[in-house]
Amino acid sequence: MSETWSVDEHLEDILRAIRPLEPIELRLLEAQGCVLVEDVTVPAALPPFDNSSMDGYAVRVADVEGASEEFPAVLDVIGDVAAGSGDLPTVASGQAARIMTGAPLPPGAEAVVPVEWTDGGTGGGPAESMQARGAAPQAASGEVRVHRSAAPREHVRAKGSDVKAGSVALTSGMVLGPAQIGLLAAIGRGTVTVRPRPRVVVLSTGSELVPPDEPLGPGQIHDSNSYVLTAAAREAGAIPYRVGSVTDDPETLRSTIEDQLIRADLVVTSGGVSVGAYDVVKEALSQGDLDEGTVEFRRLAMQPGKPQGFGLIGPDRTPILTLPGNPVSAYVSFELFVRPALRTLMGLEPVRRRAVRARLEAEAPLSSPDGKRQFLRGDYTPPEKTGQEALGTVTPVGGPGSHLVASLAQANALIEIPEKTTEASPGEDVTVIPLD
Amino acid sequence: MSETWSVDEHLEDILRAIRPLEPIELRLLEAQGCVLVEDVTVPAALPPFDNSSMDGYAVRVADVEGASEEFPAVLDVIGDVAAGSGDLPTVASGQAARIMTGAPLPPGAEAVVPVEWTDGGTGGGPAESMQARGAAPQAASGEVRVHRSAAPREHVRAKGSDVKAGSVALTSGMVLGPAQIGLLAAIGRGTVTVRPRPRVVVLSTGSELVPPDEPLGPGQIHDSNSYVLTAAAREAGAIPYRVGSVTDDPETLRSTIEDQLIRADLVVTSGGVSVGAYDVVKEALSQGDLDEGTVEFRRLAMQPGKPQGFGLIGPDRTPILTLPGNPVSAYVSFELFVRPALRTLMGLEPVRRRAVRARLEAEAPLSSPDGKRQFLRGDYTPPEKTGQEALGTVTPVGGPGSHLVASLAQANALIEIPEKTTEASPGEDVTVIPLD
Repeated sequence: MSETWSVDEHLEDILRAIRPLEPIELRLLEAQGCVLVEDVTVPAALPPFDNSSMDGYAVRVADVEGASEEFPAVLDVIGDVAAGSGDLPTVASGQAARIMTGAPLPPGAEAVVPVEWTDGGTGGGPAESMQARGAAPQAASGEVRVHRSAAPREHVRAKGSDVKAGSVALTSGMVLGPAQIGLLAAIGRGTVTVRPRPRVVVLSTGSELVPPDEPLGPGQIHDSNSYVLTAAAREAGAIPYRVGSVTDDPETLRSTIEDQLIRADLVVTSGGVSVGAYDVVKEALSQGDLDEGTVEFRRLAMQPGKPQGFGLIGPDRTPILTLPGNPVSAYVSFELFVRPALRTLMGLEPVRRRAVRARLEAEAPLSSPDGKRQFLRGDYTPPEKTGQEALGTVTPVGGPGSHLVASLAQANALIEIPEKTTEASPGEDVTVIPLD
Repeated sequence: MSETWSVDEHLEDILRAIRPLEPIELRLLEAQGCVLVEDVTVPAALPPFDNSSMDGYAVRVADVEGASEEFPAVLDVIGDVAAGSGDLPTVASGQAARIMTGAPLPPGAEAVVPVEWTDGGTGGGPAESMQARGAAPQAASGEVRVHRSAAPREHVRAKGSDVKAGSVALTSGMVLGPAQIGLLAAIGRGTVTVRPRPRVVVLSTGSELVPPDEPLGPGQIHDSNSYVLTAAAREAGAIPYRVGSVTDDPETLRSTIEDQLIRADLVVTSGGVSVGAYDVVKEALSQGDLDEGTVEFRRLAMQPGKPQGFGLIGPDRTPILTLPGNPVSAYVSFELFVRPALRTLMGLEPVRRRAVRARLEAEAPLSSPDGKRQFLRGDYTPPEKTGQEALGTVTPVGGPGSHLVASLAQANALIEIPEKTTEASPGEDVTVIPLD
C-alpha cells in the first residue's frame, strides 16, 4: 500500500488483465450496439431479382418507342405484378403488365413506364396514381395508353445491384447500429455473432447507507453510489445489476460478492478501500481467499479518487474494481477506470473518452496539488462552429470537495489538471473530458 | 395528393400536432435518459450532519496545539465513531475518538486529525493506516499519539455544505443522466416525475416480405425496415414494439393497427404509401374510419422519401407516420420526421440533429434534382481538432438509389443538398448531418 501509482499505470494494469468477452450468437435486435466478430458474407444477391423501381407498367421497349400524349402507345394490360408475386405473366408484343414498386420484372418486359407517363388505364389524361385494386379490380385488364417512350432497363433495379452474392457486407469489428442491423436483415441474417454486453454487478458498502426512499436515522445518509454507478454502467453499454448497499461486515460482503459472481462479467464496489478501521472491502478482499483471487489496493496520485483496488476473483477470474466511497470520487473513478474496462470487454474502441482543449473561464486561478492529477467538474461549451479559430470554453462547477454531488449534477465535463501543474489561470487552455 | 410539400412543411405539420407525453412518476433508474418535469427541492441538508472527511481521530483543538513528532500530544481513545454511528461518545479534554470518513463528528470534538498524523494507537512511529477493527478491536481504546496540530473544523465537512435544505437541486427540463440520478438518490428521492419514453409500434407492409431467418420464395425479399426502424427508435430513446410485416391487405392492416393502438404512443409504418394499386397503407388509412382519425398522404419535395403520410388515429389521437417502403427512404424519413416526433414526445431538445458544414471529397460532381431536397449517404470525418481553421470532410457512399442498404450501412452521415442546388462539386462546402 505504500507505493503510489499514477492514473495511467493503474488503468494500464486493469486493461492488461481484461480480455474482450467471448463472442456469442444473438438475434439481430439483441445485438444492437454490440461489436461484430465475423465478416458477414452476402449469401444471395440483393435485390434477388430484377424489379421495378416505380409503380407503373412493364413494357417492351419497341412498343412504346416514339409514344407521346398526342400519339400514345396503346397496350393490352395482361394483369398485375404485385410485390411478392411468384407467378409472373409473360409480356408479349403489344402487351403491358401493371407492376408495383419492388415487384419482379416479368419475362418479356424490358422496361417500366411509371403510371404518371400513362393514363392509368382509365382512358383519360395522364394519371396521378393507379386505382387501388380493392376499389377497381378491373384496372388490371383492359388497355393502357403510354405517353412516353422508355429506354431498355429504365426503372428496373437489376438483380445484385445493391450487393452481390459472396461479397462482404460487414466486417468484423463494426458496431451494429440501425443501418447495419437493416443490412443484416436484408440479406437474410436472423442472428449474428457479436461480443455481448458485459453484465456488471454494482454494490456500495457502508453501514451508514440507507435506500433513497427510506428515512434517515442518526448518522445515516442515502446510498447514491449504487445508483450513479448502475446508471453509468448502463450508459456505457453494459447490463447492470444493482445489488444495493452492504453493511461494513467483511463476511457479509464476501458472501454477497461470491453469490453475485455467477452473473458478473465485472464487479464494481464503492467505499471501504481507504485507511480506516472499518474499510470492509479491503478487509474482505485483501485476504486472497476468494478462490485464490487477489485484489490489490493502491494509492493513486490523483484527486479525487486516491484509494483504488483492482483484481481478478473467483473461479472465472472475474475482474473487480473497488472504487472509493465519496460520491464524486466514485463517479470520476468510474469514468477513468470502469468505463474503459467495460469498453474493453465489449471490444469497443477507443476505450477512453476523447479529451479536448478549452479555454478556462474562472473568477480566480484553480489550484491543484503538486504531484497529483486533479479532476474538477466543469461546464464545457464547445466552439460555436467547427472551422473557426476558436476553442470551446470551460467553467469550473462547484469546488474540489469530493462530496459535492450537487455540483456534479450540474457538470457536463471533467477538467483534468496534470500532476506537475499546481495552478491554472483564467484564460489558460486546459484539458477537458466532455461527458457526453 | 397533388400538392407538393417541402421537408420543412411536413415536419412542422407533424410537430404542431404532437404534444409531449404526460409526466409520470418513475423509480430513479427507470427514469434514466428522461426529462424531469418538476423542480426538485432538497428536503434536508446534505450532508445531513457535520462529518469527517478523513479516517483519523476526532479531537479538541487545544489538546493538539503545538504537537509534533518529537513532542506528540497523547490522548485517551474513548472509542470508535464509524460511518453510520448513531450513538456518539462525547470527546472531553485529553480525549480522542477514532473516526472514519463520513462518520458524524462527535460532540466535544472540534477537528479531525488524519491517521497519518498519528501513531494509529500503536505506540510506534507515524501510521499509514488504522488497524482493521476485525483484526485489532483493542485499537479503539488505549492511547494515541498525535504529531500535528489541527485548526478548528479541519477535515470536517459541514452539515449542508453540499446542498442546503429548501434549495433547488434540479430544475424541470433537465435530462436525467447518472450524475442527476445520483443527486436524487443522495437527497432521498426514490421516485421522480418525468416524461416517459414513448412506446412506438413499428410495422412494415408488403406481401413480398419474409422474416430474415426464413428462406425466400420467388419474388420475395427479406423484411429489413421493421428492424431498422425498431433499432432507430430504440436509439432515439423510445421503447419499440416490432410487429413485423403485414401483407398487402387493407383489412388485415387496419385491424393490426387497431389492435396495437393500446400500447402505442406513436405508430410507424413503412411501405404502401405511393401511387400503386397495392398501396395498402394508403388504402387502409385514407378512408378515415379509424375512430374518426385521418391520415394525410403527401408528396414531399425530397429524394429519397417522396411519398409520406401523417395523421392522428384512434380514440387517443395517436400519431402515425407512414414512411415509404424503400429501405433507404424509410431510414432517411425516420431521421427527418420520426426522430423529431419522438424527441417531442419525450420533451427533449433540440428535436433535430445538428448539421455541420464539411468539405465535399468526391471524384465527380454530385447532381441533385431541381426543386427537391436530396439526402445522400456520406462518410463524414470531423476536423482533426477544434480550434483549427479546418472543416471536416465528407465523402459520398454509394449512389443515390433508395434501395442501396449496403452503402447505407457504411455511412455515418447524411449529405443534404438544398432544393435549388442541382450540382455540388468536389471541394465545395456542403451541409452534413452526422448520425451519431
